[in-house]
Amino acid sequence: MMDFPLTLDVILRRAVATHGQREVVTKRDDGTWHRYTYADMERRARQLAVALQKLGIEPGDRVATICWNHYAHLEAYFAIPCSGAVLHTINPRLHEDDLVYVMNEAEDRIVIVDQTMYAVLEKVLDRVSLEHIIVFSAEGNVPEGTLDYDTLVEGTDAQDYEFPEMEERQAAAMCYTSGTTGRPKGVLYSHRSIVLHTFGSSLSSAMSVQESDSILPVVPMFHVNAWGLPYTCAMLGAKLVFPGRHLDSESLLDAFEREKVTVSAGVPTIWIPLLDKLNECPDQYDLSALHTLIVGGSAAPKRLMTELEDRHNIRLLHAWGMTETTPLGTVATLRPCHAKLSEDQQHAVRLRQGHAVPFVEIRARGDEGIVPWNGKTMGELEVRGPWIAGSYYKRPDAAEQFTDDGWFRTGDIVTIDASGSMKIEDRSKDLIKSGGEWISSIDLENTLMSHPAVAEAAVIAIPHVKWTERPLAVVVTREGNHVSEAELKEYLLPLVAKWWIPDAFEFVEAIPKTATGKFKKLALREQFAGKS
Amino acid sequence: MMDFPLTLDVILRRAVATHGQREVVTKRDDGTWHRYTYADMERRARQLAVALQKLGIEPGDRVATICWNHYAHLEAYFAIPCSGAVLHTINPRLHEDDLVYVMNEAEDRIVIVDQTMYAVLEKVLDRVSLEHIIVFSAEGNVPEGTLDYDTLVEGTDAQDYEFPEMEERQAAAMCYTSGTTGRPKGVLYSHRSIVLHTFGSSLSSAMSVQESDSILPVVPMFHVNAWGLPYTCAMLGAKLVFPGRHLDSESLLDAFEREKVTVSAGVPTIWIPLLDKLNECPDQYDLSALHTLIVGGSAAPKRLMTELEDRHNIRLLHAWGMTETTPLGTVATLRPCHAKLSEDQQHAVRLRQGHAVPFVEIRARGDEGIVPWNGKTMGELEVRGPWIAGSYYKRPDAAEQFTDDGWFRTGDIVTIDASGSMKIEDRSKDLIKSGGEWISSIDLENTLMSHPAVAEAAVIAIPHVKWTERPLAVVVTREGNHVSEAELKEYLLPLVAKWWIPDAFEFVEAIPKTATGKFKKLALREQFAGKS
Repeated sequence: MMDFPLTLDVILRRAVATHGQREVVTKRDDGTWHRYTYADMERRARQLAVALQKLGIEPGDRVATICWNHYAHLEAYFAIPCSGAVLHTINPRLHEDDLVYVMNEAEDRIVIVDQTMYAVLEKVLDRVSLEHIIVFSAEGNVPEGTLDYDTLVEGTDAQDYEFPEMEERQAAAMCYTSGTTGRPKGVLYSHRSIVLHTFGSSLSSAMSVQESDSILPVVPMFHVNAWGLPYTCAMLGAKLVFPGRHLDSESLLDAFEREKVTVSAGVPTIWIPLLDKLNECPDQYDLSALHTLIVGGSAAPKRLMTELEDRHNIRLLHAWGMTETTPLGTVATLRPCHAKLSEDQQHAVRLRQGHAVPFVEIRARGDEGIVPWNGKTMGELEVRGPWIAGSYYKRPDAAEQFTDDGWFRTGDIVTIDASGSMKIEDRSKDLIKSGGEWISSIDLENTLMSHPAVAEAAVIAIPHVKWTERPLAVVVTREGNHVSEAELKEYLLPLVAKWWIPDAFEFVEAIPKTATGKFKKLALREQFAGKS
Repeated sequence: MMDFPLTLDVILRRAVATHGQREVVTKRDDGTWHRYTYADMERRARQLAVALQKLGIEPGDRVATICWNHYAHLEAYFAIPCSGAVLHTINPRLHEDDLVYVMNEAEDRIVIVDQTMYAVLEKVLDRVSLEHIIVFSAEGNVPEGTLDYDTLVEGTDAQDYEFPEMEERQAAAMCYTSGTTGRPKGVLYSHRSIVLHTFGSSLSSAMSVQESDSILPVVPMFHVNAWGLPYTCAMLGAKLVFPGRHLDSESLLDAFEREKVTVSAGVPTIWIPLLDKLNECPDQYDLSALHTLIVGGSAAPKRLMTELEDRHNIRLLHAWGMTETTPLGTVATLRPCHAKLSEDQQHAVRLRQGHAVPFVEIRARGDEGIVPWNGKTMGELEVRGPWIAGSYYKRPDAAEQFTDDGWFRTGDIVTIDASGSMKIEDRSKDLIKSGGEWISSIDLENTLMSHPAVAEAAVIAIPHVKWTERPLAVVVTREGNHVSEAELKEYLLPLVAKWWIPDAFEFVEAIPKTATGKFKKLALREQFAGKS
């Protein structure tokens, strides 16, 4: 067989040759829309590649982006890796110190930054060593000492430029985990791993991406390559719709209607207010094209699934992954073995994290070794596969996250059922160990959040003399609603084991969140440390 | 990223872990049905692997099969490559001399043969050096000096056997092209190429295989791995239905109904009589589950597509590939750019060979270099990609089939349109060069075969003093029908360019065919050599 490398330039060539007239559409900051085709995108990606080379970028160098989801970011997604450099997508919500840390560890030489996020960068400029700052701006009046993205790209002749030949195992992109503890850890994605992830995630049994789709990734492009969707859409010619920084429910619903979006992808905290908005005014938007919302990042509450489907005819597809898994690891589609289950049981199946995508292998390890796939025994999830991280960038100290036989330890406590469907019961560090048994904080949170008066609920472990640990619930009530501790305890009684019911409830205005929107349980544990 | 090899044992592990209870169903020679699951299959594949090792098979050794499509052949499909050996699937329709040639060139040490095909092997036994012959037999009374497949497998303990670690670029399988001229040429498939082909061909935009499918490959497992379907179905957990040697229309229709087949795949010569049978008795079979017949191997006549769809609500999906392309290269799905075409134009699009599957790249070369994608300019199709052959087994003399820059020259004369859709106009050697212009023999054949009285038509070039070459049509009429040369000429007049109309027509009882069912034009050219 030919020695044909799995590199991203093949996807880019295909996007032009086969899908050149398919559209890439972006909502600009000012609310107007930018439209062009994959053929236009490829031309500008080549121009950007040449421009970066003229600025001194060589194969292997890191070029960072601090950008929302838009067409220029897509150009960078191809230009940087296809010219042999490494795309480092930076989460602008990182703490300043972490931002400095990741830019210095990655040794970013150039950064492409949205003008609207320039302030984030500006604060740390004296602590990082950047050679050039390229600003993507609608108005064109970029800060002094920086380069204007559009002027740079359009002013570069790349007519005869061809991307170099590359090895499939060379680095294409990198992304840092925004861990709740410790310094961020970098994951390097190879061309090969992204290409294989693109194949795996496109399958009918995974995200089932088709050319006829119009896909709006709400999940940021600085968060695990927007779950790979920019590459997946380009390979299959699906229309890409970028929301820019307009991520509120009304803007999204408007974009869904306007661009006949068929599939969108985001975290539960995006979809929950969007569902509420839809419930308020179910006939305001024509969403007849929209068939699937993919949800990941954290577990979706049941109400999100049932109401989206029953009231709005939109399927919620639950998927799981991590920065370390490129990210798609499992997906919870309904399978032939579930055909005879009741509707309620089918919902339960689809609210699990699901079965592994082909070539991702999963197992769970308990105190006594690998646990059986019985849907009951909990263990820490371990994964392996061609798009799973084998180490962290410059972090040999993090070797304990990999088993001796080469599996990645996810830190998630899961059960796996006989059909291979995985359910995250908790993060290992969030699990509550009470009287020798395990209580899943996530299960408690989701059950609490199914109460109509509860907007958000986080459950943490509090030290206990007799039981080792006991759960404490931190609750945010819905605006204009009130609920008491006693009412919540009564609500939980028929829904969870009696000994799971939290001993204490704290009502707060807001729960602190990480840069990726997850509950910052470490902060909560500190805040409520005295409650034991 | 992890160094995780793309090897077939991963597919086998997945078939058990995730799809262990999905069925593999086979129609036995005697018409009864054998049913078991992927979990059963995997157990027996491990037993077969151990049995072969005990017989002396080592990594890299070739083990041949001469078998129809059935569960034991599937076991061999996994047992042989997953234990590091090479599966050599032999076409029993090969000429005796070719059979001897391929077995000796491949140095097959063991062969697994269906009892019903033992006669094929017996004829050449004194000309090949086999160490063992394993016979798969329904009755169990195998010829003297051979081993009974079932006894061997079931008598082997493989409880603790694990498949060895392998390199993804090592050979997994091999298949010989049954060329119309010259000696057969062997193509070696690596684990990597088969795995990547499995991903590519499963995509929604390709064959769109899903776990809920029930798939019956009519295409033989000795013909380019049954288009990869055994591996594709195992990876995605689709139910596999094997027809054994029952390939007549009634048996197939009966199997479709009985096993709720959703997708089947075969050559036009299988589907044409099946359509006729359906037209005869449209209500005899409940085919409500069947949604797609995949057709490849040669171009499908239009009637096959329109009548299957209009009269029986079954989609015909046209695909193209070769032994050298593992085989899926292109597939003719209807795409967004075709949405506004008329129904007739859409049929024309879907009767082309279609657009390349992701990571397969195509181009066409004419006398003056690479031709434009305008749907008009003909050129020889060249392809490359990770599942395209880079050379032939032990045949450095066949280097002219590869370009200097590493593309495979298919020998097909094609046009490619602006959307990337390829149409085979002819085989380069079958093209008729008349007065400095090219006439497509395939176009003429398909147009002739659309005449209701014509069962088969082959068009060949006959030397001509003035025009260099002129077409001659060899026609088989449908049973009970008659049609004259004058009538056929008149029929063609509005359908093709006037100068394309064959000068001469020959009516024959049957057209000689190759081992894969293609017209043997070389034989026709010899037969009608005097007609110039």
